[in-house]
Amino acid sequence: MFIAMNRFSITPGREADFETAWRTRESYLQSVPGFIRFALLKGDEPGEYISHSTWESRAAFEAWTRSEAFRAAHGQGSLAGIIAAPPRLSLYEAVITEEAPVRA
Amino acid sequence: MFIAMNRFSITPGREADFETAWRTRESYLQSVPGFIRFALLKGDEPGEYISHSTWESRAAFEAWTRSEAFRAAHGQGSLAGIIAAPPRLSLYEAVITEEAPVRA
Repeated sequence: MFIAMNRFSITPGREADFETAWRTRESYLQSVPGFIRFALLKGDEPGEYISHSTWESRAAFEAWTRSEAFRAAHGQGSLAGIIAAPPRLSLYEAVITEEAPVRA
Repeated sequence: MFIAMNRFSITPGREADFETAWRTRESYLQSVPGFIRFALLKGDEPGEYISHSTWESRAAFEAWTRSEAFRAAHGQGSLAGIIAAPPRLSLYEAVITEEAPVRA
């Protein structure tokens, strides 16, 4: 399992605009091979958000970043003025994973 | 959905010891109400790890941190010398989530 996190710092007062931009975007992820799940995370620190995506492998994530769907997904609108700094991408390999048991 | 991330910086050369400490620990998470999944993530930056847990809610995570199981889980062995600094905990609420469709 592989996780990509893109960390955003939002201009004070523009948090609602940032969330709206994500809610109204076209995702394109549903048909991408190796995609497992996505979450937009809001941190406890002011203006802190993470675009958080989980993949079957690093190769699946890298193939997505080279795809036409990726270009289309990232060509939607502009976050100018909403984000206070360029996003910072960090990449992680899962070395241990554990899932809750299926509960009745 | 709620995510807790505890970020670790490992002393250079002690990465294998850090992973072994996690692999050999008792997890205690399986029976915790509201627990969804756990991963130990290894970052692309040298010595960078995240203990990453996903919960149904912030309340479920907070109840875990007040439980006997939490005290037992965190009383196992010592990471002295293996971690270069105290871990840094960050907490996140998911404001958007998306799952891959179930594939045949």
